[in-house]
Amino acid sequence: MAEMNPSNPLVQALLTDFYQITMAYAYWKCNKHNDDACFDLFFRKNPFRGEFTIFCGLEECIRHILNVGFSQSDIDYLRQVLPDDVHEGFLEYLLNLDGSDITLHAIPEGSIVFPREPLITVEGPLAKLQIIETTLLNLVNFASLVATNAARFRLVAGEDVRLLEFGLRRAQGPDGGVSASRYCYIGGFDATSNILAGKMYGIPCKGTNAHSFITSFNKLTDLDHIEKTINGCPCTMKDFIQICLSYKEAVCNLLKVNSSETIEGELTSFISYAFTFPKSYLVLVDSYDVFNSGVPNFLIVALALQSLNFKAIGVRIDSGDLAYQSIEIRKAFNLAAEHFGFDYFSGLSIIGSNDICEETIASLNQQGHSLNAFGVGTHLVTCKSQPALGCVYKLVKVNGLNRIKLSEDPIKTTMPGKKVVYRLFGKEGHPLADIIQEDGEPAPEGRVLCRHPNVELKRVYINPTSFKCLQKTWVKNGKVSEQLPSIHEIKKLCENEIKMMRKDHVRLLNPTPYKVSVSEAMYQMMHRMILEHTPIREME
Amino acid sequence: MAEMNPSNPLVQALLTDFYQITMAYAYWKCNKHNDDACFDLFFRKNPFRGEFTIFCGLEECIRHILNVGFSQSDIDYLRQVLPDDVHEGFLEYLLNLDGSDITLHAIPEGSIVFPREPLITVEGPLAKLQIIETTLLNLVNFASLVATNAARFRLVAGEDVRLLEFGLRRAQGPDGGVSASRYCYIGGFDATSNILAGKMYGIPCKGTNAHSFITSFNKLTDLDHIEKTINGCPCTMKDFIQICLSYKEAVCNLLKVNSSETIEGELTSFISYAFTFPKSYLVLVDSYDVFNSGVPNFLIVALALQSLNFKAIGVRIDSGDLAYQSIEIRKAFNLAAEHFGFDYFSGLSIIGSNDICEETIASLNQQGHSLNAFGVGTHLVTCKSQPALGCVYKLVKVNGLNRIKLSEDPIKTTMPGKKVVYRLFGKEGHPLADIIQEDGEPAPEGRVLCRHPNVELKRVYINPTSFKCLQKTWVKNGKVSEQLPSIHEIKKLCENEIKMMRKDHVRLLNPTPYKVSVSEAMYQMMHRMILEHTPIREME
Repeated sequence: MAEMNPSNPLVQALLTDFYQITMAYAYWKCNKHNDDACFDLFFRKNPFRGEFTIFCGLEECIRHILNVGFSQSDIDYLRQVLPDDVHEGFLEYLLNLDGSDITLHAIPEGSIVFPREPLITVEGPLAKLQIIETTLLNLVNFASLVATNAARFRLVAGEDVRLLEFGLRRAQGPDGGVSASRYCYIGGFDATSNILAGKMYGIPCKGTNAHSFITSFNKLTDLDHIEKTINGCPCTMKDFIQICLSYKEAVCNLLKVNSSETIEGELTSFISYAFTFPKSYLVLVDSYDVFNSGVPNFLIVALALQSLNFKAIGVRIDSGDLAYQSIEIRKAFNLAAEHFGFDYFSGLSIIGSNDICEETIASLNQQGHSLNAFGVGTHLVTCKSQPALGCVYKLVKVNGLNRIKLSEDPIKTTMPGKKVVYRLFGKEGHPLADIIQEDGEPAPEGRVLCRHPNVELKRVYINPTSFKCLQKTWVKNGKVSEQLPSIHEIKKLCENEIKMMRKDHVRLLNPTPYKVSVSEAMYQMMHRMILEHTPIREME
Repeated sequence: MAEMNPSNPLVQALLTDFYQITMAYAYWKCNKHNDDACFDLFFRKNPFRGEFTIFCGLEECIRHILNVGFSQSDIDYLRQVLPDDVHEGFLEYLLNLDGSDITLHAIPEGSIVFPREPLITVEGPLAKLQIIETTLLNLVNFASLVATNAARFRLVAGEDVRLLEFGLRRAQGPDGGVSASRYCYIGGFDATSNILAGKMYGIPCKGTNAHSFITSFNKLTDLDHIEKTINGCPCTMKDFIQICLSYKEAVCNLLKVNSSETIEGELTSFISYAFTFPKSYLVLVDSYDVFNSGVPNFLIVALALQSLNFKAIGVRIDSGDLAYQSIEIRKAFNLAAEHFGFDYFSGLSIIGSNDICEETIASLNQQGHSLNAFGVGTHLVTCKSQPALGCVYKLVKVNGLNRIKLSEDPIKTTMPGKKVVYRLFGKEGHPLADIIQEDGEPAPEGRVLCRHPNVELKRVYINPTSFKCLQKTWVKNGKVSEQLPSIHEIKKLCENEIKMMRKDHVRLLNPTPYKVSVSEAMYQMMHRMILEHTPIREME
């Protein structure tokens, strides 16, 4: 079994709803706690007005099942909150509870999935499966939501732009940040600013400097006394400042900027950063005035670095019109490349940040821009356009009997029984539709009759070129039974799954819904149960 | 010092942005890391189109400062991600870093606060204050946002309704849930379903049963063999079932329900729950059909419990029209109270849940309903209508020099210098306005000139009856210097602060903005600095 990522210390047996414990007590009291149960975890609607979802959170669910258990201190707490006369036998049952008799089937993490498909199916003793409900939902809901959001950012940004996740400060709590970093990476981001996530999950970590860094510097003479030399070469700070200043007039003349009006504190901060990171000099140029101070100051220091044989990386802009500014900055870089004779100046990076959302990127693409990377925070990690995915966890079978939960809204009526999903592929390799079958039905063969789960008349025959069963058994009786992929493998799978889809299913605006159908047997069983569980009312 | 709540294990030094470390390295390289710095943490706009915010997260920030430090394993990780030639001296500096020279001033947690007011002001060595930036922002942003959201739910629901937070399954990650439970309680909720939050923070924990519990039962004969007796009385399951059945026809006749069409599995589940929790019998009645099965089954068991001298608590409905259903259920309870002669049946609880938001409650209030409590999840904990608060953390002073960060948008230009906020109160005890002063200015006295921070002509004289300084010094050189309140005291403060406000400032729709002004000295200093840091451009 692959080494798993370190677990989140908050993921523990008590991270659940209190009613799971009261229900477990009632099950225990009626000798029903070990009933043989089966629950499905699924969602009913794709997020962000889209027609696809990236399933994530599986490894954390598996880890939870392997580790689940109450400590003595947990039991002491539960004794306080349960009724005074709670039976000791029940508390003992809880204290000894573990995941050893739980089996978990699931679609692989990072897969593209659709409404009503069982993402996870768990089998085991009724009370245990009840107790882990909330934790599994919590682990899948946000993970899948934020990975889907990240995948949408990647789709709108295209393959050539770098996407950096900068969301920690605005995330919903410490773990809102750590989870977001992990699942944004899987969904299509290249790196995160969050060091803890970097350390915990092996995600690339990126970052340079902020406005406070720039504004903390005042004047060049404040640095004069530094005795250290530039990293990687014997040049002192005093010398480095002199080299920088030697380019000042030339750069300001080239860019037609009033050299006496550029901000000295900003230049000082750029010098300090370049002195420390001569091989990765990238600075924020919008603290005072992008074109009359930031860009000339950046170029002055980039030229000084070049004279020491270091190549600058680029700039970041965090305010204003990113399209206009990036294009004008690119012009300045081109001018400098030509004037000073360093071709690579034309290709310096320009990173844009500042409240970027899906629509901002679409609009920047439409206008034209010269950005090489986007730093995205709030909209990405909090999933601002839809901050929750509505995964649910429903009982589908107990002691061999299928169970159903009805609702006036047909989409909220659960699909009873243990189920399997097949994906049917067409000639060009694109998925055509998914079909949900009862467990035990033969795999689809030849011409497949696909029925709409609720609308009697919606039926279609599909002739797939190939098919695959989406579920695998990851945990068998509390033991891992399938090799778990690494986070990088999950990211790769996600990328491939999206690429295989027909483009109209994954486009961001008004996409075509992907068909999720049921087999004839599934349809019949489900509708028989709906009738059986609907009381016939008496009317006067 | 009061015992503090247990800390979140994810709140650690590495829970920060990578650029804090790169900046710290550049500061260190320029001997600037110990510069005497001052940062303000504030937000620019109230959330949810409102005109107030509840400040939360302070205790977690204080705890972070007291505990901040890098482990050897953190340093090993940083060595991997920093440039190859990173100076050992810098890594040693990080390894020895702690919060011992940090001082923190802040407005008390649970207070009502307004845009641009320094919620937290930290003083200490520049590099350290930089490193804790992201963590403090993360801890304050979501805490304040979700507490404000909870306060708004309380305002719309009124004082007499119970508010239960049920959000864990839909929260943004495990801690999104745990943080939400804590700060929703402070903002005005009565209890949470989240057991871990209950244990960690001493918040009341509530919960009963779910649809899966109801649907897991099939028929009464499945319970016949149970040998245990009802909790707290010698009645066996067999006897209890018989008592229940003896009420079935009477209840069905009373409610004009076809007794052969009620769902036996539902009745079985209610019996099982009442058998286990005879003193807290509250069940979900909408699994199949509220009026033709759920309510009659509930009453059958409530009457059986009454015959054993136990009083039922009530029902929960989790779908459909909550106004109509609660009114009709209340009618059924009243009928039963009269028919069977038990007055308390009229007052049984009806809890409503199912995707409840602020607007749902407002609309239910307008239509009229018979609900006693709301269970609120997704909209509350993810702050669906605005999932992020934009707190920022800005450098305002270094080595005695005020610092400013400019922006084309005047509201984004920072207020330089260390500052103090006074709240001015009128005759009726309501706050009239807040005034931000430079640290060191005398407290307001007599007639106070209050200036708009950006608009030159907006000036007003205020004659307050009393005033108070909002900030206290909570941490002095790394030591707690002010008694920290308990979570229950913070909740109480929040409740009082909202009550003291003029109603038009805290109403939910189109509220009146509350004035946040600056003193004359503050105004002059700020605008002098804006001019000094704005380059004068050359035009052809």
